[in-house]
Amino acid sequence: MTDLPAEMKRVKARVDNLILDQLLPKSSSIREVDLLYTMMRDYPGRQAKGMRPFLCVTTCRAAGGTEDDALLTASCIELFQNWILIHDDIEDGSELRRGEPALHRKYGEALALNAGDALHARTWEAILQNKPRLGLERTFAVMKEFSHMVNETTEGQHMELGWVAEKRWDLSEKDYYEMCTRKTSWYTVASPCRLGAIVAGERGPVLDMLREFGISLGIAFQIRDDSLNLVGDEKKYGKAKSDDILEGKRTLILLHLLAVADQSERDKVVSIMNKKREAKTTGDVSYVLSLIDKYDAIGFARKRATELMKEALSTLNGIRWKGDRDASETLRSFARFAVEREW
Amino acid sequence: MTDLPAEMKRVKARVDNLILDQLLPKSSSIREVDLLYTMMRDYPGRQAKGMRPFLCVTTCRAAGGTEDDALLTASCIELFQNWILIHDDIEDGSELRRGEPALHRKYGEALALNAGDALHARTWEAILQNKPRLGLERTFAVMKEFSHMVNETTEGQHMELGWVAEKRWDLSEKDYYEMCTRKTSWYTVASPCRLGAIVAGERGPVLDMLREFGISLGIAFQIRDDSLNLVGDEKKYGKAKSDDILEGKRTLILLHLLAVADQSERDKVVSIMNKKREAKTTGDVSYVLSLIDKYDAIGFARKRATELMKEALSTLNGIRWKGDRDASETLRSFARFAVEREW
Repeated sequence: MTDLPAEMKRVKARVDNLILDQLLPKSSSIREVDLLYTMMRDYPGRQAKGMRPFLCVTTCRAAGGTEDDALLTASCIELFQNWILIHDDIEDGSELRRGEPALHRKYGEALALNAGDALHARTWEAILQNKPRLGLERTFAVMKEFSHMVNETTEGQHMELGWVAEKRWDLSEKDYYEMCTRKTSWYTVASPCRLGAIVAGERGPVLDMLREFGISLGIAFQIRDDSLNLVGDEKKYGKAKSDDILEGKRTLILLHLLAVADQSERDKVVSIMNKKREAKTTGDVSYVLSLIDKYDAIGFARKRATELMKEALSTLNGIRWKGDRDASETLRSFARFAVEREW
Repeated sequence: MTDLPAEMKRVKARVDNLILDQLLPKSSSIREVDLLYTMMRDYPGRQAKGMRPFLCVTTCRAAGGTEDDALLTASCIELFQNWILIHDDIEDGSELRRGEPALHRKYGEALALNAGDALHARTWEAILQNKPRLGLERTFAVMKEFSHMVNETTEGQHMELGWVAEKRWDLSEKDYYEMCTRKTSWYTVASPCRLGAIVAGERGPVLDMLREFGISLGIAFQIRDDSLNLVGDEKKYGKAKSDDILEGKRTLILLHLLAVADQSERDKVVSIMNKKREAKTTGDVSYVLSLIDKYDAIGFARKRATELMKEALSTLNGIRWKGDRDASETLRSFARFAVEREW
């Protein structure tokens, strides 16, 4: 059995080296922009699991490539993750990221927004550097997958932010899955796996199955994330506890609570969730948490996450891999980790 | 003589068609994200001069290519311009863009920021579509130029925002040129021209000369823009008049004023400029405008813009074009337009 956390850490260290190289000032840069580069290196320098690059290199090995073939692409996924988090934190008004103040809380929104854009552009620049190793055609295929991934992610982000802006609560479990598929599944599981496979030369059916695998497991991952936000250890988890309640997030846990609570409870929860972040009291948050407890909404969410993980595993079992058997076994372990993790 | 405004309008109409195609929901999209696409099409649907795509197709013709060769790349420049404006307006807290409320004033900052990201990704997606016409190598060269252009632009944006955030006024004319080169010249003139030339197959010295041309003319363009912001016709110009004073922008006009005004005037101008936007009164703005008038700071800026435009023309005259002689003549007319325009 692979020691997953140790393996993720090892791959992350290799990826981090590449990323930090990517984020040095250009020769044409002047001292005036040193802070921009400090800001770009900030999130990548914080503690993180490194799941996405790990999925990318592991899938590449399972599909018959090597870890080195996929390393640069894996680092691009991590670059992507970092710029989207900078912007996500501004959009949500978040306070903490990976245990430290969010970038816009350290440097103001204007500079942080711009640093996110700079990092976004660097992601594409880094992808282009695949050319000598992968050749033009395969580098192109990598770019197309990235392009698709960003489209999905911004659509999902729009759905979630739109629901908050329009104070919408008439949402079903299915709506939540649609949003999660776009907001989380693509960039967390589907594309990292597909990119690994693309780098290894896979086309067609394996990519389709990795999409299915990634969508199910990505939703399961997000459900686990939503639970950890409410009941996890803040120090391990790295975000402010119950931030999702403060930010008015439509999680499966909340939607289930609204579906099973009685009318007066439901009205009170909705009125609390619709308040602006600053207006929410600790009493408001405790009230919502007490109802989540009363109706075991987290137990419900855990059940759903496990079902989705099993669907993902069943899809994974159908893939005929051309490469390393250990690597495909590791993907199976990862699927369990995604819904059982404490961090 | 080419009728420049009419020609720009004609090219812009062709580019707009391509852009609107690019910004339709994907087949996988659901109704929930219709608003995201409406938002992405918002700025591109507003009146604009279309200078950048015009420079791209004109340079392509001058370098021996056709307008059709460069049209998709030209539309990508316009896409780029639109996402950067959305983010720029958030960063500056701007009210108007092209005569209408800025996107974040219509839909809130969170959704607007995300729509900008979505548009950024679409820019790269559109560049990839050059492949059938330009082939892989040339499409790649186009991507590298875009990557460089975004790096420069975000560095320039960082410089300008950083000066405001740090309340810095110890800035020279040279500092202003360094900032403008990055913030404006690359994406307004240098890269649009270079991209046109790259599409036509140019490499090496012509690209270097277009960089020089673009840097000088881009600064001249920005100086003219700064003047129009203060004394232009708001209806023609499309931004709120004197917005630069409200936003605390370090323009050449302001820096010159600070260099020539007496100590008490200087102190008063700096204290006004350092106020937050909301705290600035109409009296504050009038005071700054009256000093600009007293010291003819706009006349000084006009002189500099003309000198820079002449430098640009002299570089342009040194280029040995392989293509359409009319097109290279049009580039010369454009240089004059950039510093003499009223809009």
